[in-house]
Amino acid sequence: LKIFSLSSNRPLAEKIAQEVGVELGKLSVDRFSDGEIQINIEESIRGDNVYIVQSTSAPVNDNLMELLIMIDALRRASAKTINVVMPYYGYARQDRKARSREPITAKLVANMLQNSGVDRVIALDLHAAQIQGFFDIPVDHLMGAPLLADYFIKEGVAKDAVVISPDHGGVVRARALAEFLKAPIAIIDKRRPKANVAKIMHIIGDVKGKKCIMIDDMIDTAGTITLGSQALVDAGATEVYASCTHAVLSGPAIERLENSPIKEVVVTDSIQLPKEKQIAKIKQVSVAPLIADAI
Amino acid sequence: LKIFSLSSNRPLAEKIAQEVGVELGKLSVDRFSDGEIQINIEESIRGDNVYIVQSTSAPVNDNLMELLIMIDALRRASAKTINVVMPYYGYARQDRKARSREPITAKLVANMLQNSGVDRVIALDLHAAQIQGFFDIPVDHLMGAPLLADYFIKEGVAKDAVVISPDHGGVVRARALAEFLKAPIAIIDKRRPKANVAKIMHIIGDVKGKKCIMIDDMIDTAGTITLGSQALVDAGATEVYASCTHAVLSGPAIERLENSPIKEVVVTDSIQLPKEKQIAKIKQVSVAPLIADAI
Ligand SMILES: Nc1ncnc2c1ncn2[C@@H]1O[C@H](COP(=O)(O)O)[C@@H](O)[C@H]1O
Ligand SMILES: Nc1ncnc2c1ncn2[C@@H]1O[C@H](COP(=O)(O)O)[C@@H](O)[C@H]1O
Repeated sequence: LKIFSLSSNRPLAEKIAQEVGVELGKLSVDRFSDGEIQINIEESIRGDNVYIVQSTSAPVNDNLMELLIMIDALRRASAKTINVVMPYYGYARQDRKARSREPITAKLVANMLQNSGVDRVIALDLHAAQIQGFFDIPVDHLMGAPLLADYFIKEGVAKDAVVISPDHGGVVRARALAEFLKAPIAIIDKRRPKANVAKIMHIIGDVKGKKCIMIDDMIDTAGTITLGSQALVDAGATEVYASCTHAVLSGPAIERLENSPIKEVVVTDSIQLPKEKQIAKIKQVSVAPLIADAI
Repeated sequence: LKIFSLSSNRPLAEKIAQEVGVELGKLSVDRFSDGEIQINIEESIRGDNVYIVQSTSAPVNDNLMELLIMIDALRRASAKTINVVMPYYGYARQDRKARSREPITAKLVANMLQNSGVDRVIALDLHAAQIQGFFDIPVDHLMGAPLLADYFIKEGVAKDAVVISPDHGGVVRARALAEFLKAPIAIIDKRRPKANVAKIMHIIGDVKGKKCIMIDDMIDTAGTITLGSQALVDAGATEVYASCTHAVLSGPAIERLENSPIKEVVVTDSIQLPKEKQIAKIKQVSVAPLIADAI
């Protein structure tokens, strides 16, 4: 068994290798002068079961291409099996045609991985569970909720908590966390009373005097979650937490989180946080043990 | 027949459309906040023969992904045929395993295009003609040499000229240009007499008192071509020209060209030159008529 780390999330790959009890494989990933990716696998992998750790977070196209080139090199070097650990699956939100003439990029990514000769994919909290069906190879779909629940239990937040789904699409996910916490759930109901009128937020369920834990699969620009946090405070919540598996945190996200009434943002390390996004409010829980178990 | 331009080389796409006598198709290519590509085809293409113009020049991974997403969207929108015009084919130099455990990324790119549902590819001066064989769909392989030859003839450089191959691998290409110019050829022979000793350049053929036209498929960092130009001057060439189809021009290329004895660098517009690379020495010849003919 060999584990290789590509560029997107080496700290996580190191933790996974440590949990599994192996050293990371020797590999160099460089750029030619014109920006093309150059990969050199620096140890034999002939006949080995190889695991590649790569999140296709930003820069998504570079990280995806790195992954595909690595798979090509491994296949040509006679790896026995090629297993891709993708803690974050980029383009997952482009998973259906919402309008005519749209691509379904999540399926394109699945096709590319599959056609490149991957034997198995290990993924974590896919934006839509249907993405598993985009593949005809085994996909292990792991869940971050138990790890996030552990954090809230350990920090004493679970008592008197309500788990909040930030929209109607997220209720199943909220239920899952609520079961681990033995907490009730509530839902934020966004409505636009008339065109060109701001959305109003109405809360379905009881949050008065409670600690609220908002849960989503990812926090990207943090618009939904920060607006929701204010609505919860207005409805009488005593403390508001936000939680997600994938800390995408693009554009105005950090500023919005800083300025919101959210007390803590509890995320996993599926996406490596660059220095400038490591603010005090954000707490990271590692998915390394979960992934090591699946390997 | 519909022609769409992606982001890499819109000026060329516009010229091609003009030569063909159609307007470019309506399309928007944007980025989501996290950097993922968003494509919207803004007119019906059902039942149409669609041509996409995209060079996979730098940023190569972004341009390639844009192309693949566009193909996905076109296929799902029931295009009759999908034809990819790739004036520059990125990763073409990664076309064989030079060492163990190397990828063959040029083949990976071919597989990705083919599996995405492309019907036909129009390419120009592929780094190796073998790349045609990486596909099982029709590949039209166009040649820039006649256009470059026309330029040299029109500018009166062809008379008394010698065409120079900058290395032994480029002799066939030099022969092709020489035939159009009715000129002889010469070859730059690079040798390293001992390990850790600088290469010496020896010229096979007669260049004394002649105008020398060095030809290659691409100029990337311009190291070979600028060193060669000095060797030609030292051997008595009166004027030195450099010519290539693909103006990659990465890293120190522009500085090297500026500081070299090369009089003119004659390139095509297969790769769009950003403003800072449009120096007086570089002359661009358009491949739009050639490509329009192939469409
Ligand atoms: N990278 C992205 N950033 C923001 N929105 C996206 C992104 N990718 C896809 N979408 C949009 O998000 C919507 C899907 O999100 P959801 O309804 O939560 O599954 C679709 O309308 C997509 O057009
Ligand atoms: N983008 C690139 N820039 C520079 N060298 C490259 C690039 N891609 C591949 N190569 C190398 O170029 C060599 C092939 O060039 P050639 O011998 O001219 O076909 C191989 O050794 C490759 O490793």
